[in-house]
Amino acid sequence: MESFAGRIDLEALGLDHQPLAWAGELELDQPSLRDNTGLADRLARAAAGRWGLSRVVVPLSLASRIAEMPPFPGRRLWVSLQVENDQGRLIALDWSSTAPESRRGPFGLAVDVGSTTLVLALVDLGRAVVEEELTLTNPQVRHGADILSRAHIAEKAEGLAEMTAGLLQAINNGLAAMCRRLDLSVGRVSAAALAGNTVMTHFLLGLPVRTVIREPYVPVLNRPAELTASAVGLEMAPEAPVLVMPNRGAYFGGDLVAGLVVAGLARAEEPCLMVDVGTNAEVVLGQKDWLVGAAGAAGPALESGVTARGMTAGPGAIDRVRVDRRTGEISWRTMAGARPRGLCGSGLIDLLAESFLSGLIDFKGRLTLPPGHPRRTDTDEGPALIVVPADQTENGRPILLTEVEIDILIRSKAAMYTILNTVTQSVGLSFDQIDRFFVAGTFGQHIDPRQAVAIGLVPDLPLEKFVPLGNSSLKGTILALLSNRARVEALDLWRRLTYLEMNVNQDLMNRFSAARFLPHTDRRLFPSVGTTII
Amino acid sequence: MESFAGRIDLEALGLDHQPLAWAGELELDQPSLRDNTGLADRLARAAAGRWGLSRVVVPLSLASRIAEMPPFPGRRLWVSLQVENDQGRLIALDWSSTAPESRRGPFGLAVDVGSTTLVLALVDLGRAVVEEELTLTNPQVRHGADILSRAHIAEKAEGLAEMTAGLLQAINNGLAAMCRRLDLSVGRVSAAALAGNTVMTHFLLGLPVRTVIREPYVPVLNRPAELTASAVGLEMAPEAPVLVMPNRGAYFGGDLVAGLVVAGLARAEEPCLMVDVGTNAEVVLGQKDWLVGAAGAAGPALESGVTARGMTAGPGAIDRVRVDRRTGEISWRTMAGARPRGLCGSGLIDLLAESFLSGLIDFKGRLTLPPGHPRRTDTDEGPALIVVPADQTENGRPILLTEVEIDILIRSKAAMYTILNTVTQSVGLSFDQIDRFFVAGTFGQHIDPRQAVAIGLVPDLPLEKFVPLGNSSLKGTILALLSNRARVEALDLWRRLTYLEMNVNQDLMNRFSAARFLPHTDRRLFPSVGTTII
Repeated sequence: MESFAGRIDLEALGLDHQPLAWAGELELDQPSLRDNTGLADRLARAAAGRWGLSRVVVPLSLASRIAEMPPFPGRRLWVSLQVENDQGRLIALDWSSTAPESRRGPFGLAVDVGSTTLVLALVDLGRAVVEEELTLTNPQVRHGADILSRAHIAEKAEGLAEMTAGLLQAINNGLAAMCRRLDLSVGRVSAAALAGNTVMTHFLLGLPVRTVIREPYVPVLNRPAELTASAVGLEMAPEAPVLVMPNRGAYFGGDLVAGLVVAGLARAEEPCLMVDVGTNAEVVLGQKDWLVGAAGAAGPALESGVTARGMTAGPGAIDRVRVDRRTGEISWRTMAGARPRGLCGSGLIDLLAESFLSGLIDFKGRLTLPPGHPRRTDTDEGPALIVVPADQTENGRPILLTEVEIDILIRSKAAMYTILNTVTQSVGLSFDQIDRFFVAGTFGQHIDPRQAVAIGLVPDLPLEKFVPLGNSSLKGTILALLSNRARVEALDLWRRLTYLEMNVNQDLMNRFSAARFLPHTDRRLFPSVGTTII
Repeated sequence: MESFAGRIDLEALGLDHQPLAWAGELELDQPSLRDNTGLADRLARAAAGRWGLSRVVVPLSLASRIAEMPPFPGRRLWVSLQVENDQGRLIALDWSSTAPESRRGPFGLAVDVGSTTLVLALVDLGRAVVEEELTLTNPQVRHGADILSRAHIAEKAEGLAEMTAGLLQAINNGLAAMCRRLDLSVGRVSAAALAGNTVMTHFLLGLPVRTVIREPYVPVLNRPAELTASAVGLEMAPEAPVLVMPNRGAYFGGDLVAGLVVAGLARAEEPCLMVDVGTNAEVVLGQKDWLVGAAGAAGPALESGVTARGMTAGPGAIDRVRVDRRTGEISWRTMAGARPRGLCGSGLIDLLAESFLSGLIDFKGRLTLPPGHPRRTDTDEGPALIVVPADQTENGRPILLTEVEIDILIRSKAAMYTILNTVTQSVGLSFDQIDRFFVAGTFGQHIDPRQAVAIGLVPDLPLEKFVPLGNSSLKGTILALLSNRARVEALDLWRRLTYLEMNVNQDLMNRFSAARFLPHTDRRLFPSVGTTII
């Protein structure tokens, strides 16, 4: 599971259980000459009575459906509705089934709309349980892994339409597959919440991104209006409310807002940091009363690696590396136990940290092994560390790490540290005043904070302060489906967040330069990091 | 004009001027790195600032439109929005024109959806002026003049779809024609309000009427939810709010609710009566705190006439009749001054009243003229009065009124009087406690209350108490477009109205029998009516 396992203890998270959709069974009385209230109005009246609401609105499309209902005795039917304050709005109704599912639900769909993968969760909103989860490749990746190439295709109306249709089709197919597994009618899925970066949510909603990718980087839409599934193109109950997490700019998407909800920043008494490393590195600092955010290009090298053998997490990816401090021997672990194919983000950070801590590379990132050493080879790009010899890899070619690649990694981590440093100083705080350090995304789930500290990617805080959030974009949308408080907090956090433009000035450049060492020029900032010279 | 002429003095009507849509011009500032708020969100911000609202929501369809807007300097654009309390919702935007129209409006469409005719009004909501008015034949009349035959066709889905499409096409064509005359873009029409009887509004909204026309006569929908033009199928600003007046049952439509608004019943201190004579006769009695309504089959004979030469108002229809009290000579007036073709409702009532008052017929409706009298002829159905001799009519055949037809007319007027009587007695009132007697519909506009009293169709009240409302269905929708108070009153009246089922019992039959004379068995109830015997 990418998100929560089993029942979600909302109370423990400090959240209420007020799902975006409610459901239950209703019994309708037969109309008579004495009570000839309209069919839709009597259904609304029954629902209002059942849930103690002052009014329940029936959308026109459902009024038509009600007219089709056969006049069976006792007319029991399943309905779902959206409730705000003491008003309800009918979402779906169904009299076709008396299966056990009719006593469950309603169901909601949560989606992390990632640029590489889409992660879907089908949630029983009544019981607060994630029933199914599904990870799909974003079909847009065939237009290029990076978002800019897709944005350029979307400059033409047909290109944009294709981006939107591709996303919707993948999500709709995924939802249908999950529903089949649960033997659930798709028409009973009565709510959706989605989060993604700003370009992805624009694609999802069919909005052009021309202005998003060009200075001054202006989204078409920050906060989407209340939407319905039929308006968005999601194949579920057509009147289902659809919540798309608002963005705070081209570089600060709804996925981060979702993450802030999961981190509980709306209720944090002390300042906390949250970082999300994706295509960019995004940083938020704040607590319940204020929030500042910033973003910078620090990500790709750290996440999937811009190194020759960098790869996204998957079978054959090395995700753990250890270097024997005494012998310099390199050991590693691959995902799914396959023969090694490359290094994923956490593997790269491990490798860099272990190589540094064991003295295979020095604080400037240069190899210390002399020419001719069995772990060293010389390539066109200069000297390289042999991480896995050729005879042990999947394709018979060695997995290397060149000095040039090490330099890219160090610059990436320096960029990240500089952003963290700048944001923290911008509000007059120092790192030791940070209460918790949340690491969002799957990246955060896999890296070892000890190693991240060792290379100076993150400040040298006590390890217990680091909190991995997992797929907080997905988790945030799940919470938004389940809890009114989570929905309110998402909007509050969104409203309160001040986006800090990173001005590239001399001060910033100085900070960046000082961070271009392992772990940092100023070793006093990293007292816990000790090195061994072989 | 069917409705109001020129500017509507809302203040004089006791109503506020809070139209369903507002409009104006906005100037948008250019986005910058310092202010990179989304395009749609900055438009919402500008609109909120301009009109002092806490928030303005931008529907998704308009967010897409905003992205298409060229980045011209100063970005001036015309917007319309719906306002409720301190919240706004964008309806339309337009940057294509700087024509004078841009300083007018927004415009709203009001429609009386009659079963025979559709009456449209295009209203400048900002200035509270009815700019254009258009009367169209309801295209459904080719399926039969009476509603039941259309309801039977609509039992099949294709039949219903045809009914709906026909109505929408007629309204859309009519609106387009009115807009052309005003040189106004249809896309700037930003609100609509429609009223009709229950079957007509069901047809309009594509709802089946199967349950409406069968015992226990249950509408699918009493009170439609908030709708948009695109959801209904009206070709105007797609996000325009559309208000469809709620009905109170199969026989008490939104057209009557609209009429109650026009009559000002929500603010009446003393009890008032309102009658609407259409296919049925509908009666409402009440004042600001309570309302009872009833309906009965009293209408057809009175309106267009079930007599051989009855016809709807139009060229050649006799709408005024006078009988010389001394000579018994019959004089008449036709509409458009054409040669007589038949008698419309007001002509029939005039004829019956004048014939009775001049002694051509007695209080039982029998001809007093002896056989051989030039004004009398004997037909297969018995004796008949020659209203217009053959040589003066359009088709060379005399216009007659037979004793059988007189009897039908008397039964119709007796039914109307019985309903009025029953409703009034049901709340323990007598006619002399009635403050005003509103007569809705075009019928009410043309009949002479003196004559209606003379035949005992309505109670013998002082003439100044009779108030013709004209097309109050259309007027009510115009007021609903213009005034929040009118909208609130419509819902209040709708909620408060108690529908009185007319139980056909001995008491009712006795009242009906007593009313089957001219003007009534009990002449003391009609002290103002005097007869002359020739």
